[in-house]
Amino acid sequence: MYRTHTCGELRISDAGKSLTLAGWVQRIRNFGGMNFIDLRDRYGITQLVFNPQHNKELTEKSAALGREFVIQVKGKCVERSNKNKELPTGDIEILVDELNVLNASLTPPFTIEDETDGGDDLRMKYRYLDLRRKPVRENLLARHQVARAVREYLDGQGFADVETPHLIKSTPEGARDFVVPSRLNPGQFYALPQSPQTFKQLLMVSGFDRYYQIVRCFRDEDLRADRQPEFTQIDCEMAFVEREDVLQMFEGMTKSVFKKVRGLELPAFPRMSYDDAMMNYGNDKPDIRFEMKFVWLKNGDEDVVGGKSFKVFDEAESVIGICTKGCAEYSRKQLDELTEFVKRPQLGMQGLVYIKANADGTFKSSVDKFYSSDDLKKIAEKFSALPGDLILILAGEKARTCKAMSELRLEMGNRLGLRKKDEFKPLWVLDFPLLEWDEEEKRWNAMHHPFTSWRKEDDALLETDPGKVKANAYDMVMNGVELGGGSIRIHNRKNQERMFAALGMSKEQYEYKFGFILNAFEFGTPPHGGIAYGFDRFCSMVTANQEGIRDFIAFPKNNMGRDMMLDAPGDIDEKQKKELGLK
Amino acid sequence: MYRTHTCGELRISDAGKSLTLAGWVQRIRNFGGMNFIDLRDRYGITQLVFNPQHNKELTEKSAALGREFVIQVKGKCVERSNKNKELPTGDIEILVDELNVLNASLTPPFTIEDETDGGDDLRMKYRYLDLRRKPVRENLLARHQVARAVREYLDGQGFADVETPHLIKSTPEGARDFVVPSRLNPGQFYALPQSPQTFKQLLMVSGFDRYYQIVRCFRDEDLRADRQPEFTQIDCEMAFVEREDVLQMFEGMTKSVFKKVRGLELPAFPRMSYDDAMMNYGNDKPDIRFEMKFVWLKNGDEDVVGGKSFKVFDEAESVIGICTKGCAEYSRKQLDELTEFVKRPQLGMQGLVYIKANADGTFKSSVDKFYSSDDLKKIAEKFSALPGDLILILAGEKARTCKAMSELRLEMGNRLGLRKKDEFKPLWVLDFPLLEWDEEEKRWNAMHHPFTSWRKEDDALLETDPGKVKANAYDMVMNGVELGGGSIRIHNRKNQERMFAALGMSKEQYEYKFGFILNAFEFGTPPHGGIAYGFDRFCSMVTANQEGIRDFIAFPKNNMGRDMMLDAPGDIDEKQKKELGLK
Repeated sequence: MYRTHTCGELRISDAGKSLTLAGWVQRIRNFGGMNFIDLRDRYGITQLVFNPQHNKELTEKSAALGREFVIQVKGKCVERSNKNKELPTGDIEILVDELNVLNASLTPPFTIEDETDGGDDLRMKYRYLDLRRKPVRENLLARHQVARAVREYLDGQGFADVETPHLIKSTPEGARDFVVPSRLNPGQFYALPQSPQTFKQLLMVSGFDRYYQIVRCFRDEDLRADRQPEFTQIDCEMAFVEREDVLQMFEGMTKSVFKKVRGLELPAFPRMSYDDAMMNYGNDKPDIRFEMKFVWLKNGDEDVVGGKSFKVFDEAESVIGICTKGCAEYSRKQLDELTEFVKRPQLGMQGLVYIKANADGTFKSSVDKFYSSDDLKKIAEKFSALPGDLILILAGEKARTCKAMSELRLEMGNRLGLRKKDEFKPLWVLDFPLLEWDEEEKRWNAMHHPFTSWRKEDDALLETDPGKVKANAYDMVMNGVELGGGSIRIHNRKNQERMFAALGMSKEQYEYKFGFILNAFEFGTPPHGGIAYGFDRFCSMVTANQEGIRDFIAFPKNNMGRDMMLDAPGDIDEKQKKELGLK
Repeated sequence: MYRTHTCGELRISDAGKSLTLAGWVQRIRNFGGMNFIDLRDRYGITQLVFNPQHNKELTEKSAALGREFVIQVKGKCVERSNKNKELPTGDIEILVDELNVLNASLTPPFTIEDETDGGDDLRMKYRYLDLRRKPVRENLLARHQVARAVREYLDGQGFADVETPHLIKSTPEGARDFVVPSRLNPGQFYALPQSPQTFKQLLMVSGFDRYYQIVRCFRDEDLRADRQPEFTQIDCEMAFVEREDVLQMFEGMTKSVFKKVRGLELPAFPRMSYDDAMMNYGNDKPDIRFEMKFVWLKNGDEDVVGGKSFKVFDEAESVIGICTKGCAEYSRKQLDELTEFVKRPQLGMQGLVYIKANADGTFKSSVDKFYSSDDLKKIAEKFSALPGDLILILAGEKARTCKAMSELRLEMGNRLGLRKKDEFKPLWVLDFPLLEWDEEEKRWNAMHHPFTSWRKEDDALLETDPGKVKANAYDMVMNGVELGGGSIRIHNRKNQERMFAALGMSKEQYEYKFGFILNAFEFGTPPHGGIAYGFDRFCSMVTANQEGIRDFIAFPKNNMGRDMMLDAPGDIDEKQKKELGLK
C-alpha cells in the first residue's frame, strides 16, 4: 500500500502521527517561502506543508510539482495554526519529510474544480479527467448508493436477482434492436435486449415468484437529448399478484430508497387516471408540485368561448387555459416571451391569448375586440381567477394544444418558482389506453408493450373498438418525470394471440418472433405483473431532483451515439468483416 | 394477491387457520377415495386434501387436474395424521374448500422432478420448465446469495460499483470481439467488451480508488464445452496498491463469501510460483487437495532412466512419473484403461509405463525387459514409493507430456476419491511469464493481457529476452479451477508502449486502438492493480464444488452459441440490414 491514510480522514486527534499519504496535487500555493499543497483523493483533501526551515531541499523539489501530479508523501500530522473550517481535515496539515513523485501530469485541458472551464465536448473526450471533479464523482458514488438501497429493499422482500442473456433474438417491437452478427451461425444475428421483458415473464413461468435485476438495455433510436443507446433498468416481476400488490411493493421501494439515500420521508403516492392526467395537465406524467390545472373552454361540443366571431377560437378543435396566480402585472415583454415560447416549432402554436384579472376588478385581454368585459368576467370565473391573476389561453388541434399548454404550464411553474428542488411529489398514473393509433403505419401500437393485459370489463372491445380498451398498466411519476412503468401481463396463449392480432401481426409473424413465450404460456403460467424503472433517471431524481441523466453515467455517449473518449464506433478489420459474412 | 401464504411456510402452529395458497400441481395421489395433491411453489411443497365426505363436488373437480396446472385453493390448515418428516411442511395439510384453476398445463415434455427424464437438448429448449426443477432453481438462488456476499464485502471495503459501457470500440487482443453495426454512423461498428479492463483502469486514473462491478462480458470464441459467448465477471480494481494488498483483499473476499454462503472457514491461501506449479503438477491451476506430485525422471540434461536401450525414454524430451498410493494391485484391465486414457487424441501419448512396488518388496513393471530389479528399485526410491504403490510414467515432448501427466494425475485423484466434494483448497499462483510465444503468428502474446506490468528486476529483459520476463500477475485457484486472475498494471505511457512493441504492434496500430488510455496515462495515473473472477465458475465452486457453469446460468447457450429456447441467433429483416449498411 502506498499510503497509511486517505486524504479525507485525518482529524485533530491524529496530530503527532507519522504517516504516508498519496494522491493528486490539487493546488500549490507559495506563502512566506513555504509551499502549501492541497493533496486530493476520492475521500477528501489534506494540506501538505513544505517548510524550508524544516527541509530546504524538499521544499525546492516541491516547487517543481504541477497540478494533477500523483505524489506520495511521508511526514507528520500537525495541528494547523490557521484552521480551515470548510474542510473536514481543516484542523491539521502534514509537515512533509519525504516526497515521491509517483507519476507526472501534463497540464489538464480544463480545470479539475467543482466549476470547470471545460466545454462539453472537451470534457467528454477527457472523461477520465472530468470524473475527477467532485460533483461528477459524487453523482456516480450516489448512483452506487441508490443501487444498494434498491437491492437491500428487494432482497428483503424475497426477490431473486437473476441474470438474463444479452445475446438474444431480434423481435423489434417499437424501437429498433441493435444486432450482432454471428460468426458461428453465418448470416444470422443476435439482438441486444431492449429489456428483459420476455425473460422475466419466463422466470415467472418457471416459478421464481419474485425477480429483479439491475440490467443494461439497448435501443437503437434516433437519439434525442438525454437518450442513450444503452441505459440501465431496475427490472422487476412478481407472480400471483394483482395491480394493487405491485403498486404497494414499489411505492414501498421508492420510499425506502429516498429514506436511505436522502433521509427523506416521501408522502403516500396519490393515484390519477390517465384520462384525468391528460384533462388536467395535458400530460401523462404531470408535475403535481403545483396546481395550475387546465380549464377547457372548448372541448368537442362543450364550448364557452364560441360565437363571438373570434375565428381562432371558433375554428379550433380545443381551447384550453390556465390561471397563473399573481401574474396580472406581467409586462408586454414578458407576455411576448411567453408567446414566442408557444410559437417555437416544437410546440407550433399560432399565438397566445391572455386575460388579466386586474387588481381593481377590471379585465384586460388580448381579445378585447371580441369579448366584452362581462364575457371576460364569465371566463375568469371558470378559472376561479382572483384579482391579480393572469389567464393564458391556447387554441388549436386537441393533441397539439394539450402538449403546448402542458409545456407552457411547466414554464410558468419554473418562472414562478413552483418546481422546488427540495420537493418531491410522487404519483401513480393508472388506466392507460392499451393501444394507440399509429397514423403513419395505419395500425394500432401497444402503448406500453404487447404483453400488457387489459381490464376485464373491456375484454369485448378488443376486437370491436380497440381504442377504448384500458390497460392494466401503471406509471410511477415524480415531479413531471416518469420513473418507471409496468403492468399486469397477459398470461395465457389465447389472449396473447388476440393482442398480437390487434397489433396487426399475422399468425406466422408472431409464431416466428414469440413462439417460445406462447408455448410457455401453455405449461402452467401463473398470473404475474411487474415494473421497470429507468435506473439512470431514478438516480438523477433521487440524487439531484433533475431529469438529466448524462451526469449519472460514467462513460456516456453523445447525441450521435458516439463515445468521444474512445472514438467509438469505429472501423473493424476486413478479415473480421469477412469472417462475419459482412462482405 | 392470489395467496395468503406460500407453499413453504406452514407449520403445526398454523393448524386451524383459514388460508389461500397458489402454486403448481406437483403430484396427485388418490387414496381411499380422497385426492392428495402436492402443491409446489418456489418456497416449498404443501399437501392439499380433497375429501369427498367434506366436499364431493370439489373432490371430483380436483380429479380433473393435471401435473403443472396452476391452481389457487382456499381451505383450512389441519394437522396431518400421517406426518411427513421429509418436508418442512410435513406436519400439516390443507383441507380444501375452494379450488380455482388459474391456468391449465399441457403435459410437460419431461418430468419436473429433482432427477428428470429429459435429455439436454429438450431441457434447453424448454428451459422455463427445467428451471422449475428444484436443483436448477436452487443453483440460481445460490448465485444470488454469492452476488450478495460479494457486494457486502466489497461495499464494506469502500469499493464503488460503477457501470461501464457495453457498446465500445473494437480492440481485439486475443479472443475475437462481437461487433454491433451502427446505424447512425454507417459503416462503423461498436464492439461488445471482452472485459471492462481499460475502463476500470480509467476509473483509477479518475481517482475512484476502489472499483467493482458484477458485469457481463462477451467473447466470440470457438466454443468449447462449458464456454459461453457471454459470461459474467466480478471485476475489481484498486489504486495505490502493490501485489500483496490485492492478494490480501481478495483472499479476504473469497473467505467471506464461503463463510456467508456455505458457513465454511477457508484456510489461509498458500502461494506457489508458476514454475513450481508446472514442475510439480504440469498445470498452472493445480488441484492441491491431494499430493501425487510429478517426479521428473528426465528433464533436459538430468536423466535417471537413460542408457538402458529403452528407446521410448532415450528419445523422449521428458520422462515424468507419479506415484499412486496403494495401487500396486491394479489389474491388467485397470492398467489398460489408464493406457487408453493417455492415448486419447486430446492427450496423444504413445503409451503408459508402470512400475508396481509389490507388497513383498519386489518390483514388476511394463519395461522389465530394459530395467533390472535394481534399476526399478532406484527409480522407485525417487518416488519414495512404498510396498503396495503403483508408479505411472509418461514420456515424450515436454509440454504435451506435462499436460497428459497432469490429466492422468487428476484421473487418479478421481479414482482414489482424493478430490473430495466437501474439501476446498485455495491457492495463489504467482510469477507467471509475462509473454508466451505464439508459434502460429510467430510473435509474443501477453499471457494475461497487454496491461500487465512486470517485475522490476526483469525490466532490462523485455527487449532482450522477453520470454524470461515474469509478470506482476496472480491467479486464484481452487481445487484445480481458476477462479480469478489479475495483475498490477502498467501505469505509464513509456512502459505501455514498450509492452505493445513487445507484442509486435506498430506505433500506428496501438495509437489507433489504445490512444485513449496511453493519453490518460500522461495525466497523473496512480499505480494500480486488480483482479477479475469468472462469476459463473465462482458460483459453481462455492455452491457445488464443481467446474461446470451451465447449471448456474438461467438461460445458457449451447456449444454452437445458440439459445435453443429462443432459437437465436436468427434472421433479421432486409429493411434492417439495409439501414445498417449490411447489404
